[in-house]
Amino acid sequence: MSFNSFGRLFRFTTWGESHGPALGAVVDGCPPGIALSEEDIQPWLDKRRPGTNRFTTQRREPDQVRILSGVFEGKTTGTPISLMIENVDQRSKDYSNVALAYRPGHADYAYDAKYGFRDYRGGGRSSARETAARVAAGAVARAVIPQVRIRAWVESIGGDRIDYDAFEDAQIDANPFFCPDAAAAERWEAIVDSARKSGSSVGAVVACEATGVPAGWGAPLYAKLDSELASACMSINAVKGFEIGDGFAAAALTGEQNADPMRAGNGGPRFLANHAGGIAGGIATGQPVTMRVAFKPTSSILTPVDTITRTGEETQIATKGRHDPCVGIRGVPVVEAMVALVLADQALLHRGQCG
Amino acid sequence: MSFNSFGRLFRFTTWGESHGPALGAVVDGCPPGIALSEEDIQPWLDKRRPGTNRFTTQRREPDQVRILSGVFEGKTTGTPISLMIENVDQRSKDYSNVALAYRPGHADYAYDAKYGFRDYRGGGRSSARETAARVAAGAVARAVIPQVRIRAWVESIGGDRIDYDAFEDAQIDANPFFCPDAAAAERWEAIVDSARKSGSSVGAVVACEATGVPAGWGAPLYAKLDSELASACMSINAVKGFEIGDGFAAAALTGEQNADPMRAGNGGPRFLANHAGGIAGGIATGQPVTMRVAFKPTSSILTPVDTITRTGEETQIATKGRHDPCVGIRGVPVVEAMVALVLADQALLHRGQCG
Amino acid sequence: MSFNSFGRLFRFTTWGESHGPALGAVVDGCPPGIALSEEDIQPWLDKRRPGTNRFTTQRREPDQVRILSGVFEGKTTGTPISLMIENVDQRSKDYSNVALAYRPGHADYAYDAKYGFRDYRGGGRSSARETAARVAAGAVARAVIPQVRIRAWVESIGGDRIDYDAFEDAQIDANPFFCPDAAAAERWEAIVDSARKSGSSVGAVVACEATGVPAGWGAPLYAKLDSELASACMSINAVKGFEIGDGFAAAALTGEQNADPMRAGNGGPRFLANHAGGIAGGIATGQPVTMRVAFKPTSSILTPVDTITRTGEETQIATKGRHDPCVGIRGVPVVEAMVALVLADQALLHRGQCG
Amino acid sequence: MSFNSFGRLFRFTTWGESHGPALGAVVDGCPPGIALSEEDIQPWLDKRRPGTNRFTTQRREPDQVRILSGVFEGKTTGTPISLMIENVDQRSKDYSNVALAYRPGHADYAYDAKYGFRDYRGGGRSSARETAARVAAGAVARAVIPQVRIRAWVESIGGDRIDYDAFEDAQIDANPFFCPDAAAAERWEAIVDSARKSGSSVGAVVACEATGVPAGWGAPLYAKLDSELASACMSINAVKGFEIGDGFAAAALTGEQNADPMRAGNGGPRFLANHAGGIAGGIATGQPVTMRVAFKPTSSILTPVDTITRTGEETQIATKGRHDPCVGIRGVPVVEAMVALVLADQALLHRGQCG
Repeated sequence: MSFNSFGRLFRFTTWGESHGPALGAVVDGCPPGIALSEEDIQPWLDKRRPGTNRFTTQRREPDQVRILSGVFEGKTTGTPISLMIENVDQRSKDYSNVALAYRPGHADYAYDAKYGFRDYRGGGRSSARETAARVAAGAVARAVIPQVRIRAWVESIGGDRIDYDAFEDAQIDANPFFCPDAAAAERWEAIVDSARKSGSSVGAVVACEATGVPAGWGAPLYAKLDSELASACMSINAVKGFEIGDGFAAAALTGEQNADPMRAGNGGPRFLANHAGGIAGGIATGQPVTMRVAFKPTSSILTPVDTITRTGEETQIATKGRHDPCVGIRGVPVVEAMVALVLADQALLHRGQCG
Repeated sequence: MSFNSFGRLFRFTTWGESHGPALGAVVDGCPPGIALSEEDIQPWLDKRRPGTNRFTTQRREPDQVRILSGVFEGKTTGTPISLMIENVDQRSKDYSNVALAYRPGHADYAYDAKYGFRDYRGGGRSSARETAARVAAGAVARAVIPQVRIRAWVESIGGDRIDYDAFEDAQIDANPFFCPDAAAAERWEAIVDSARKSGSSVGAVVACEATGVPAGWGAPLYAKLDSELASACMSINAVKGFEIGDGFAAAALTGEQNADPMRAGNGGPRFLANHAGGIAGGIATGQPVTMRVAFKPTSSILTPVDTITRTGEETQIATKGRHDPCVGIRGVPVVEAMVALVLADQALLHRGQCG
Repeated sequence: MSFNSFGRLFRFTTWGESHGPALGAVVDGCPPGIALSEEDIQPWLDKRRPGTNRFTTQRREPDQVRILSGVFEGKTTGTPISLMIENVDQRSKDYSNVALAYRPGHADYAYDAKYGFRDYRGGGRSSARETAARVAAGAVARAVIPQVRIRAWVESIGGDRIDYDAFEDAQIDANPFFCPDAAAAERWEAIVDSARKSGSSVGAVVACEATGVPAGWGAPLYAKLDSELASACMSINAVKGFEIGDGFAAAALTGEQNADPMRAGNGGPRFLANHAGGIAGGIATGQPVTMRVAFKPTSSILTPVDTITRTGEETQIATKGRHDPCVGIRGVPVVEAMVALVLADQALLHRGQCG
Repeated sequence: MSFNSFGRLFRFTTWGESHGPALGAVVDGCPPGIALSEEDIQPWLDKRRPGTNRFTTQRREPDQVRILSGVFEGKTTGTPISLMIENVDQRSKDYSNVALAYRPGHADYAYDAKYGFRDYRGGGRSSARETAARVAAGAVARAVIPQVRIRAWVESIGGDRIDYDAFEDAQIDANPFFCPDAAAAERWEAIVDSARKSGSSVGAVVACEATGVPAGWGAPLYAKLDSELASACMSINAVKGFEIGDGFAAAALTGEQNADPMRAGNGGPRFLANHAGGIAGGIATGQPVTMRVAFKPTSSILTPVDTITRTGEETQIATKGRHDPCVGIRGVPVVEAMVALVLADQALLHRGQCG
């Protein structure tokens, strides 16, 4: 199996470069008979869309999705769903500096080392623009598992963390940071503005919760639900860490502190805690599945950084252009999409193996 | 593809339960002509073997591996390598309490929810005993990539962290904690002893470094080297978090702080920092690949915890028996094995696609 | 792995229905640095194109391919190659009879039984129009293995077989039947014309030979070269049989008659016969790889055939419209494409595992 | 995915060489709760077992299967089922001639060309002995799809074909040839005896029918039921051809002759013919799935055949030893096993995607 595909029964393949004519995804294995139209997909793309406020890249892409196959009379047919998004604002700027020298923190050198060759325009295939295709595919995944609610938000920016006591669900979509804590959102405005103005960038942590995941989804041993989620989230550009439940904090606890006791509930146990993040032995317990994803600061900064050219000469590079000062913000809909894609796959796998 | 296999070209499948007659791994896709004998595998199993000191489970297993196929006249033939380890000390104790009530933090309830049924003896398939098969397979992987050196250690136990200024490579194998800092090892003795004596448990963080990974290994987009490593490590029992390079710490940095500048080196760049952990865009840069893995405290504790029975009645359970007070310690050789397995696979994939 | 993809390292996914806006293929795993443009793909599509003579369907499709990704400055980059072909002549005719009643021999009933639902316009996803995407992908495969020459022809139509003593390579492209025997081509003109005029159809056998396949390609046991070829060819619409080498004829031979003796040759054995069709134990021997593929007669015929409606009432159906009287003819470029796709994949797999 | 595995959701991996200590299969993805014991598997192995009459190899193997995992209290648990068969009669004869010279028709040269190295004892991994593992796995598959009845028989030996008017189901197990026509069985006794006595061999055609396959199993486009069956059967040692339904004969028919008309039936159509072999568009129609598999004559014959040595010198080789004079006979239980394995996989896939 090649490498631009993800999933086993519900599987998607993405294609496209930052500055090519279009990008897209083929979603294979979607069950038949599910209502689906472009209107079901577009809102998620709009959520991720660049250029909507001053805290994201100023590249202007309408990101209009077209369904080219797999839907007939408003319903999925069980055959592959081809989704295409045209690139509109791939500004024909001068890429000669990027073509010659490697941008530290970017995949430039690594791609060259692997392929001996790369499409340097806007990062080519390694551009976060590819995540638009994931978001489109993720919208299809959501339609497959309507019983599941997936919700991500930014938990910290540049080390400044929200106060969970101030968590308001409605806040998340009320500010440009997907921030559930109104006070934190105000602080972040200053942080991100400062980074933007100085041509710098900041990192962020995105948290995500999926509720309504039935106990039993997931699969030992190498398709564990947490394994799949980790793989899915680590594949997102700029992600450097993944936690399920208490994550690294659990490593500092004792067994007593980390226990999730159970009492009798309705149609299953009622858990008194959720340190585990809703997964045991790789299988969902029915509790909310909770995770956390670390995004590094955008590598594109105005400050010149030491680097070398393709021919090995020492130089410096400053990355001008239209970049997100905090790439983690737009990571929110991407994390949600990847979680949806994993869960849709696990839903089908579970039904296949345990009927 | 089913779920007890891992890898694409270099692929292994494990089988076996904690209290069955044996467990094993089938390694498929190993290149031909590699010198391999049971003596190459046994030392890694011995490193993971239980019962060697008072800080691990007292189950006594010789964990002798047998090669049943795929090796002829001392060399791999390119055909599947079947590795088998017999279970010896699967003490026939009374499992009636485990059979009836779910141990919180264990996979008991989740397996029942999934399969409607489970082998409850010693955790069955969800037991960490399965990791013996991974370690055996990992030894084969190491033989495939002799240019790579993989080294893991425990970085913290119960929140007590080593001092990296005191890091001594030789210390790692000189104490029962795989601890590179002699002073920390002394402190941990007290921490783990205390947990053991009180029937409690503690969590740990394992760090791992792979040096000698050639620039270019790894593959965009859904077989990124960091994605594969995350998936591999999250599939290990008790793991709750994974970081590559600076991981979550990177989320608090600015782009300037997180940059890995490059200067001219011998046959490739010389990097001035390694925040990225040796991976950019999912592809190795040639720097050391560094990662961190969080292990929760062992869920088996003597303190009774609220739980329910299979039929939904409320009760409490205390897990007697032979358990690791800190399962992260024996996680060290398992993390190493999984990293070796991922890298061997990536080595073959890279040769196949970019050969 | 889902079901509209084929291949392991060199892998393609097709999408699109007969009467949707477009169809296409995503080719993943193509090595970098290979010269590729639309001009390399178009001739193979032209060979398969409908409407070029009276012996094929009169649907008029330009079948112009566009490369949407994966190629930069005229060379493959190693990232996915998205190929798209727009549907132009999807005549908006009245499909009400096909929507209501099942065409015997078509996939109508089977799709309904599987999905409870189908895109009935022109057969939807089950239409042979999908093979255009395979031919486009196959052209990329050919570019990956320039050392291999793949050549298919029609060996018999309606039971009338060519005389291999009259085989002329140059004839194959000189008549509308891909017939290497000029005399047979004349006879077939009458046979196919008669079928066409009476609204009937005839079956055909396509033979294919791949020369230049290096000894060693192929892989035991479940990716045997012959297994992969069989799977690839049986996936083509209307195919009902597959033979490698002597095929079914070998079942009537003795071991002596079927032997392929070897003499010393240049850099490998010189074989004195090729009953095996160039494959032993699933692995290429270096001889020409020879195979034969049976195509049933097109199921769409003017003679009314007994059938039932979706609601189970008995009726009859005659399939008007634009159909190939002998679907095997246009099967020639499709068989070639599938063989190229299998061999490109095996080339990469072999390099990956055996370096 | 590596190459000694087959299947997608219901997946098995085989391992072992002809003259190693044991061979086996790991069956992954078997649903939980299915009654399974060694007694369910052994009869199928006995059917394939060598040395039971003078028409098969005289190697004496008890072929006793052991279940090492995945079954608890008599039922499958959903975890991998490890099956092991020890090799007992791997006679330590002198292999020096086979080690040095290539047996034409065998995989000797091809394995050397691929791996530069091979286990020459009894054919190593390329020996038909591996099919014992498939038969064991196939028995598990049968338990997964109890609604399906799979029945194979020998249709012709050395070109001598049964008379289908004389077909008696009960005859199949009443003679050593799995021959449903008593008169043919008598003729074959002479044919196979003659081959055996003269150290020659003969080919055979095996026919197989699966009844009870529900309409809807199978999956477009590259996991078509016929594609999967072709791949599965072509992977069996000595197989050179595969047909579904009328197979190659369909290529000589007209559309009218090849039609399978439908009338109203109980809970689905009643078909008036089955030229298609129970599959349309890769999906089962509910009719019996019928196929035919061509086995070449055993390549091991006493007549010396021209060959070369590993170092390229010309010589001759005669293959003494214990061989089946007609390898197609023992192919019957192997074909049945592969068909069961494909159908079990398709059953789970269908449930997963169309649930």
